[in-house]
Amino acid sequence: MSTYAAPLRDMLFTMKEVGGLDAICAQPGHEETTPDLVEAILQEAAHYATGVLDPLNRTGDVQGARWHDGQVTPADGFREAWASFCENGWNGMPAATEWGGQGLPTLVSTAVLEMWKSSNLAFSLCQMLTLGAVEAIAHHGSDALKRRFLEPMVAGRWTGTMNLTEPQAGSDLAALRSRAVPEGDHYRVSGNKIFITWGEHDMAENIVHLVLARLPDAPPGVKGISLFLCPKYLVNDDGSLGERNDLACTSIEHKMGIHGSPTASMSFGDCGGAIGYLVGEPNQGLACMFTMMNHARLNVGLEGVGIAERAYQRARAYALERVQGKPLLSGSTTIAGHPDVRRMLMDMKARTEAMRALAYFCAGQMDRAAGHADAQEREQALALVGLLIPVVKGWCTDSAQGITSDGVQVHGGMGYVEETGASQHLRDARITTIYEGTTGIQANDLIGRKLAREGGRTLKALLGRIDGDARRLAEMPDAALAQIGGVLAASARALGDAADWLLAHDDQPAQCAAGAVPFLRLAGTVIGGWLSARMAEAATAQLAARSGDAGFLGAKRATASHYAAHVLVQAPMLRDIVTGGAASTLALADDQL
Amino acid sequence: MSTYAAPLRDMLFTMKEVGGLDAICAQPGHEETTPDLVEAILQEAAHYATGVLDPLNRTGDVQGARWHDGQVTPADGFREAWASFCENGWNGMPAATEWGGQGLPTLVSTAVLEMWKSSNLAFSLCQMLTLGAVEAIAHHGSDALKRRFLEPMVAGRWTGTMNLTEPQAGSDLAALRSRAVPEGDHYRVSGNKIFITWGEHDMAENIVHLVLARLPDAPPGVKGISLFLCPKYLVNDDGSLGERNDLACTSIEHKMGIHGSPTASMSFGDCGGAIGYLVGEPNQGLACMFTMMNHARLNVGLEGVGIAERAYQRARAYALERVQGKPLLSGSTTIAGHPDVRRMLMDMKARTEAMRALAYFCAGQMDRAAGHADAQEREQALALVGLLIPVVKGWCTDSAQGITSDGVQVHGGMGYVEETGASQHLRDARITTIYEGTTGIQANDLIGRKLAREGGRTLKALLGRIDGDARRLAEMPDAALAQIGGVLAASARALGDAADWLLAHDDQPAQCAAGAVPFLRLAGTVIGGWLSARMAEAATAQLAARSGDAGFLGAKRATASHYAAHVLVQAPMLRDIVTGGAASTLALADDQL
Repeated sequence: MSTYAAPLRDMLFTMKEVGGLDAICAQPGHEETTPDLVEAILQEAAHYATGVLDPLNRTGDVQGARWHDGQVTPADGFREAWASFCENGWNGMPAATEWGGQGLPTLVSTAVLEMWKSSNLAFSLCQMLTLGAVEAIAHHGSDALKRRFLEPMVAGRWTGTMNLTEPQAGSDLAALRSRAVPEGDHYRVSGNKIFITWGEHDMAENIVHLVLARLPDAPPGVKGISLFLCPKYLVNDDGSLGERNDLACTSIEHKMGIHGSPTASMSFGDCGGAIGYLVGEPNQGLACMFTMMNHARLNVGLEGVGIAERAYQRARAYALERVQGKPLLSGSTTIAGHPDVRRMLMDMKARTEAMRALAYFCAGQMDRAAGHADAQEREQALALVGLLIPVVKGWCTDSAQGITSDGVQVHGGMGYVEETGASQHLRDARITTIYEGTTGIQANDLIGRKLAREGGRTLKALLGRIDGDARRLAEMPDAALAQIGGVLAASARALGDAADWLLAHDDQPAQCAAGAVPFLRLAGTVIGGWLSARMAEAATAQLAARSGDAGFLGAKRATASHYAAHVLVQAPMLRDIVTGGAASTLALADDQL
Repeated sequence: MSTYAAPLRDMLFTMKEVGGLDAICAQPGHEETTPDLVEAILQEAAHYATGVLDPLNRTGDVQGARWHDGQVTPADGFREAWASFCENGWNGMPAATEWGGQGLPTLVSTAVLEMWKSSNLAFSLCQMLTLGAVEAIAHHGSDALKRRFLEPMVAGRWTGTMNLTEPQAGSDLAALRSRAVPEGDHYRVSGNKIFITWGEHDMAENIVHLVLARLPDAPPGVKGISLFLCPKYLVNDDGSLGERNDLACTSIEHKMGIHGSPTASMSFGDCGGAIGYLVGEPNQGLACMFTMMNHARLNVGLEGVGIAERAYQRARAYALERVQGKPLLSGSTTIAGHPDVRRMLMDMKARTEAMRALAYFCAGQMDRAAGHADAQEREQALALVGLLIPVVKGWCTDSAQGITSDGVQVHGGMGYVEETGASQHLRDARITTIYEGTTGIQANDLIGRKLAREGGRTLKALLGRIDGDARRLAEMPDAALAQIGGVLAASARALGDAADWLLAHDDQPAQCAAGAVPFLRLAGTVIGGWLSARMAEAATAQLAARSGDAGFLGAKRATASHYAAHVLVQAPMLRDIVTGGAASTLALADDQL
């Protein structure tokens, strides 16, 4: 059976050494967020994740959410867990204090969210969607909407959803057909939506659907999409619930994983139109979506981290317990002493720690962008966040596929048997490269909006920092750090080469797009490697100062060495695919495939 | 919905250009196997696979095999399909004519088996296990056992199983505890076995279990294991079925995939001992197993090919049908015109074709080893088969993980919904790197028994051929072939470097074992690339001679170019992991993981 314990030591180390926790706590508005408080919050969250959410993870998988006649019943225990989750203030924790949240730095809430993702991904999605809707309403809703909806949503009495996808419009929102017709102070919304996460359930009193739809006079394409708020139950002026709105859950999907999270098909307006309220300006629905995109994509990237961590813990526990054959490694009596099993565990560990570092680094930059005292620092941080978000989302979820697959492999035959839980990790992880924008879409965002549009300025500045660190490390007398520095320098050059190639070929969009995902993998590999190296350097300094646990700090060094020798070494190959792979990719006609 | 059509043109091209079909058909004993006959057999098999097995593939997944009170009921339609499969002679086709088979070359049966793997992997396992048991009995059984069991097993009236694994003895057969006590002309076998594929079902009149167990005076470890034949129903002297034997299926596993194939836990001898007959000499059970290992491992490697092919066909069909966004590729109106989707399709196609080439090449060498007129040729072919088998098994199944995962990704959100079938491919494929020896075990076989034990002689000879072809190609005026040749030459050097490093470090077994799987991947990547290049060269010659379909032949060239630019380029990186990655892999103590 799979069980999870939050890797608190790793999390705090990464928050401090990579995320810039101390500096963020010193920013205006976070004066009360002391390092001690942060540690206390993380400990409480870890306790809750292990005690309440983790035991329901397999229940959610085996039982799943069940649809009957328009109603959705979550797996046993989910309802009670949601109630206690909200009661303990976890649902609203990342939200602004104004609406009942705790206004914590994104870096801190990121570490907490990682625990929800690890302990019960399916459950965590209900909070994620709710907070996304809160963010959209808080930024774009009228005062009346904010007053009516935000407090109960932050408290978790009401949950939220995002209704984007339609059968003919998945990634291409321009093809949306849902319609909204004005009627007095509201609209009548009609249309069919699919893939609506937690679109229907009975864990909360009400469900607040945010729905993309077109006004009658809207221009075609993405410039004619508006955002509407359609509550499951209409809300009276005093905040009490009124009639049922004209919207229904017609079915839920049979999915490969995240069975505990109902994925609903929704029908709006079968009886004349669901009452909806415009959020933001007419035809500005997409801009409203973009507001929450950064947090949403960071959080899905974090799902990659969380599932990878869980899969690693499961594989490690099995490998340290299972006796089989004669281990070649002295000191080992279990299969963890077989070098190939050890290789898989080290790959899983090194990748997961680099992924976490990338996600936390990005979260820290979001805090800097939001609250640093210096305007120029804020601006630079914001640009960096823009660059990093598609990498966090794309690379962390992409990497999680191999990590969870290795997690199965470490178990041998037992990994294929559902009872161990290893298979669930792979099945759950498989959605993360798809929803909230596929890896291909993240990669196009990266090479287009984030690289080409600004001539590579932000990436070049980051590469300057990476290269500086790499050269410094490469010249150190410490052989391990010097070796890491050498590989990092070469891999940074590879990323620079690939970026230059893309910038030089931006008049050939198909050629560039053919290499977009390999480029995203290259960027994640190199930036993750840089942060891994920084953690090794910090661990080395702490070891020299005799502060901290020597076993833990030594492991950070070895883990960074492993990352350099097994992952960072892939950078030149990825560069070659970007710069030399497009012609053959695009060579065939459709009928030659 | 997923549907499959056998890629006959690809199969025949690969059999001829890589497998050496014409030469094999000319070998003594295969005079009647004309190329026309081969094509007719493949067409018939394709017809059967598409018409009968493919429609049951999803039924098997959704319904699965069901256990009730010791009985196992296969999914609807499987029973009838097994009857028609046997009636049509497909079950025994690869077996010797002596027992009712058709004695076809392994190369031909390999292509046919690939179709069963593609169209219905779960179903195909029943045949695979039956033929494995036939092979063991034919090689090691007494004349009496052969006379009694082989004909009905080849005909498929009775099926076969392999009972190796016990809860405490997965990959480590030395830890086996099952016992066999002599009693007159037979033995009484007792013990518990797990992971017994098709260990119980009602598709056949009888099930012939081959069981590894220890005699009372057996030495410890693998030298004390003997092989016993325990039929589900005892067989009377006239061949009719007698009493039920003392063995029972106590449960079947809940697995990630291959739900249609019951994976049984078996209990032997709960009421005094199952009657069993010794197969081969006492304490030689492992040697008997080794007899069938080459075919079994080739066939599981083929499962990687078969599932990859099916996943590719599914993804291609979806990509050529789904309209979404504006394709960058002119001539495309569907998502196949998005360069990143095209990249995934080309990766899937190029890898699958190289995997097929490797499997067929190996099958062809098995035919040469078995029947070439020249003894030295037979010996060389046999050594090559020994080297290739772990690569076919390990690399084809390992590659199938990424290919089936890409197959899901091409579908976007629909790939995560079970109804499309894309998820089943990933779930079914996931077992193939585990059973019949994990990838780690294949890799240890490769670097130990197949490389170090003979000082790398066979690999070096093969590398000489690859390097010769690479240099020849690199100097061709044909730019595409020249480019492939250049990459192939560099990758062959990388494989040679890695082999040299392993040979030079064979006094450090842990260091070598840490790089064993990367070395196996490197070997598969390079040998697959060589065969891909040979196919491109053959296609070029046919194009020049204006023979064959220009679109198909041109695609073979582009596919080989894609393989070189996206897969072969990984060779130097894999070499670096083998030669530079061991230290960090082995650095941590258990408690630092």
